[in-house]
Amino acid sequence: MRLLFLGDLLGRTGREAVIKEMPRLKGELAADFVVVNGENAAGGFGITDKIAKSLYEVGVDAITTGNHVWDQRELMGSIDADPRLLRPANFPVGTPGKGTRVFQLADGRRIVVINVMCRLFMDPLDDPFACLDRELAGRQLGSNTAAILVDVHGEATSEKMALGHYLDGRVSLVVGTHSHVPTADAQILNKGTAYLTDAGMCGDYDSVIGMQKEAAIHRFVRKTPGERLTPAEGEATVCGVFVETDDATGLAKRVAPIRVGGRLQPAWPD
Amino acid sequence: MRLLFLGDLLGRTGREAVIKEMPRLKGELAADFVVVNGENAAGGFGITDKIAKSLYEVGVDAITTGNHVWDQRELMGSIDADPRLLRPANFPVGTPGKGTRVFQLADGRRIVVINVMCRLFMDPLDDPFACLDRELAGRQLGSNTAAILVDVHGEATSEKMALGHYLDGRVSLVVGTHSHVPTADAQILNKGTAYLTDAGMCGDYDSVIGMQKEAAIHRFVRKTPGERLTPAEGEATVCGVFVETDDATGLAKRVAPIRVGGRLQPAWPD
Amino acid sequence: MRLLFLGDLLGRTGREAVIKEMPRLKGELAADFVVVNGENAAGGFGITDKIAKSLYEVGVDAITTGNHVWDQRELMGSIDADPRLLRPANFPVGTPGKGTRVFQLADGRRIVVINVMCRLFMDPLDDPFACLDRELAGRQLGSNTAAILVDVHGEATSEKMALGHYLDGRVSLVVGTHSHVPTADAQILNKGTAYLTDAGMCGDYDSVIGMQKEAAIHRFVRKTPGERLTPAEGEATVCGVFVETDDATGLAKRVAPIRVGGRLQPAWPD
Amino acid sequence: MRLLFLGDLLGRTGREAVIKEMPRLKGELAADFVVVNGENAAGGFGITDKIAKSLYEVGVDAITTGNHVWDQRELMGSIDADPRLLRPANFPVGTPGKGTRVFQLADGRRIVVINVMCRLFMDPLDDPFACLDRELAGRQLGSNTAAILVDVHGEATSEKMALGHYLDGRVSLVVGTHSHVPTADAQILNKGTAYLTDAGMCGDYDSVIGMQKEAAIHRFVRKTPGERLTPAEGEATVCGVFVETDDATGLAKRVAPIRVGGRLQPAWPD
Ligand SMILES: [Fe+2]
Ligand SMILES: [Fe+2]
Ligand SMILES: [Fe+2]
Ligand SMILES: [Fe+2]
Ligand SMILES: [Fe+2]
Ligand SMILES: [Fe+2]
Ligand SMILES: [Fe+2]
Ligand SMILES: [Fe+2]
Repeated sequence: MRLLFLGDLLGRTGREAVIKEMPRLKGELAADFVVVNGENAAGGFGITDKIAKSLYEVGVDAITTGNHVWDQRELMGSIDADPRLLRPANFPVGTPGKGTRVFQLADGRRIVVINVMCRLFMDPLDDPFACLDRELAGRQLGSNTAAILVDVHGEATSEKMALGHYLDGRVSLVVGTHSHVPTADAQILNKGTAYLTDAGMCGDYDSVIGMQKEAAIHRFVRKTPGERLTPAEGEATVCGVFVETDDATGLAKRVAPIRVGGRLQPAWPD
Repeated sequence: MRLLFLGDLLGRTGREAVIKEMPRLKGELAADFVVVNGENAAGGFGITDKIAKSLYEVGVDAITTGNHVWDQRELMGSIDADPRLLRPANFPVGTPGKGTRVFQLADGRRIVVINVMCRLFMDPLDDPFACLDRELAGRQLGSNTAAILVDVHGEATSEKMALGHYLDGRVSLVVGTHSHVPTADAQILNKGTAYLTDAGMCGDYDSVIGMQKEAAIHRFVRKTPGERLTPAEGEATVCGVFVETDDATGLAKRVAPIRVGGRLQPAWPD
Repeated sequence: MRLLFLGDLLGRTGREAVIKEMPRLKGELAADFVVVNGENAAGGFGITDKIAKSLYEVGVDAITTGNHVWDQRELMGSIDADPRLLRPANFPVGTPGKGTRVFQLADGRRIVVINVMCRLFMDPLDDPFACLDRELAGRQLGSNTAAILVDVHGEATSEKMALGHYLDGRVSLVVGTHSHVPTADAQILNKGTAYLTDAGMCGDYDSVIGMQKEAAIHRFVRKTPGERLTPAEGEATVCGVFVETDDATGLAKRVAPIRVGGRLQPAWPD
Repeated sequence: MRLLFLGDLLGRTGREAVIKEMPRLKGELAADFVVVNGENAAGGFGITDKIAKSLYEVGVDAITTGNHVWDQRELMGSIDADPRLLRPANFPVGTPGKGTRVFQLADGRRIVVINVMCRLFMDPLDDPFACLDRELAGRQLGSNTAAILVDVHGEATSEKMALGHYLDGRVSLVVGTHSHVPTADAQILNKGTAYLTDAGMCGDYDSVIGMQKEAAIHRFVRKTPGERLTPAEGEATVCGVFVETDDATGLAKRVAPIRVGGRLQPAWPD
């Protein structure tokens, strides 16, 4: 199985880059399944049904989110109707939407996508480790499930690495989001799980994590209310990770970073 | 000027890898000046004079640190006697050591190294932005100073990116440390400063930010006191960044990530 | 029912004051049941079986704790054998000890004590609100349970007040601990639950939250490792709250702060 | 000198209670000087010139603030024109307003008011301890200055107590604000400074720190965006502290909590 995961789409420039590059990405990588993190797709804050639809139309199969999931409040009313759009699994019981979604390819292979929030330096939520144990119960990688992708949305590198090792051998890919900067530590862990601490954003890297620099610097330096944060509008770098799994086991045979366009050094599987 | 910066050396495996690779790194890169972050060099916690000396012996020119600088308390008594070893500049007035050090090459060129702590999700300290304005006062890149390297030791990608843009055009390199994971966003900012959000650690990446996995995972999952955190002991990846500056301006002409050995995908300037 | 709750016992001076005052407190208040928070009883850090025993001997009926519960690690091995000593209920599944304990008076009346951790500005844990719903399931105040005391161990006044109102009408008393400073907001909430944001410590108030001033101030001012924090040793003020409930409903008829000895202004029910 | 300090005025109910009670408070206490914290006076968020004026009219002499000072942005433009309205002193250089203001009574006695922000669990700012040393330089309590009041606006009891002892003997009163709950630890420290960890808010205590309960509880429990936080509108308790100083030294002879009206147990100097 060939899997493509792209990090937090940031605003118009991020969406446009992903929409433009998706046919080529999906084609050249012969990707069977594509996941993107969409928590910043709508002007940097949340996502709408309309934006989700525009991503499905170009070949995105699933959309994960994170702490910004409800920034566009309308989503609380519509997320249950969209089986491809996830919110973090360790939100309180009763939260709209689901944190785990099961997908079936035309050839019958089943793919599970799970989205969890980390907790270190973030809003208090229930334990993502215990949550993942529950979400994975009964899912046998390589038998009843062809591939499992887990988006760990978090701040601290330590927590993401701990989650990677905790899931090693049980899922196909553990990939971090939220920091908006791609990390260069893609590797296959000891028991076969592909891992990357952060996919990086699909956005303009002439910015402060995708937002215009002046307003963002003002916040750090002046400590007075300044302009609203708005997305930087330069050309986006599409950032993510490509994983090829062994269909017999669901584990990773290959993992490689993806970086296309914009200011960052390009990366593509050999 | 050709500059090499390596991220947080983590324990014995990190030191040994840096000591082993330094002659070749310095030679093949024809580096004029080498800085390493040493805050985790002593068993993961702090650094000693003896370790600093072993690094100078293989060609390290300056050592920066961070929040772990005093983990080996003896350093508080000796740091003032070592003009090559820095602690963050925005520590309280009266703290032993200095956060800015000036170096002179044999050919007379002057190099300034500055070390600051970020604040987001970290211990409260004085403003690193204002601190950097003070530390940079009177230093004219390209005239009285050939190169300026700034190690921004911090957790949040947003704060590091904001510091990069804040210093753009005023220094040669802004490089982050502390996250222990290399980022893949090396770039030359608009006004000529080389930038990388995090250099990554020089340590074993089969770990949780350099520490043995079991004890680290225990802390997240069990919330009971477990074993002490100790460095993972597998082969280290030496991680950092190489910058070539224009001697006329002190600004960057080229920036490239460095990754050598261990588990991570290798990186080397073209 | 007449209930007495005392806040975090801090070190030797806190223990000695409680042990000395307990006969008189229990006698003059005609208290049916006494709970103390013991998380700092052993030199400021944790509690031992021996200390717990010394408190039971003078009439303490139950001991709650908090984030410091495991500072004396031996307790992890012995807490399950002590049905009067609680750890927070929202610790991970599999943690030794229990967060809810049921007690029976000689006259057959049943009392429930629950201990939870808040999360704001504290270590990440599972949701105390949802946890309390589970712990309270099936417990009918005024029918199968005569009184329910809840120790909410937390930093933020907002979270403690929110927990108070969340439990209003369902328990007899919600009392905060952890800040080590008594609050002056004792009240009976609208549906009959007695509430106090923080009971305050039983410790020396010529201190920084019970610890010797010099070392504590050093930490704030110098940001270098200084002396260990050790308990201040002046005379303790015994701080807590007295509640009288209506046996027909289990709800509060009266709530009053208790402050005895040491430096603080004394308080005693009218 | 007889000093009255009242904690965070919360919204209309807080303002109205303070305005109504001020004549009696000032009269019966024979207060020479009155300070109130006004950071939540305007609907819970910030303060306006108009509100400040309404407070001066009933006898308030100075208004301190805190982290909410700029919630009504217009204040940034007008604060410099109001010599009675303070913002925290440890805001960045260049921030509008001042953190220290000097007042002169009709009889010529000079009073200094200082406002600082704490840092633990709060937004990063420069060190309040070092800031206070600077603000106090040249001010001799009992000689060139009759009284010095310091409002330490902060979350953590430990930091406020550390500040109290740090200033002991140098100022007349150290009083905390921000927690919105009055503490019951009013005392005169060893070297003569009056101290209270938190003055408490002037607001409706049938609330979550002054805000309506439902919306506040929703935030803790649901983790989805809910209604805006708005002030609870029940009768406010006016909370604060009264201090009598020795004119020869400027140090405290007496300190007593003040609680008038609303739900909390009343307090008044003997
Ligand atoms: Fe994001
Ligand atoms: Fe996020
Ligand atoms: Fe480090
Ligand atoms: Fe660090
Ligand atoms: Fe405590
Ligand atoms: Fe505690
Ligand atoms: Fe406030
Ligand atoms: Fe505040």
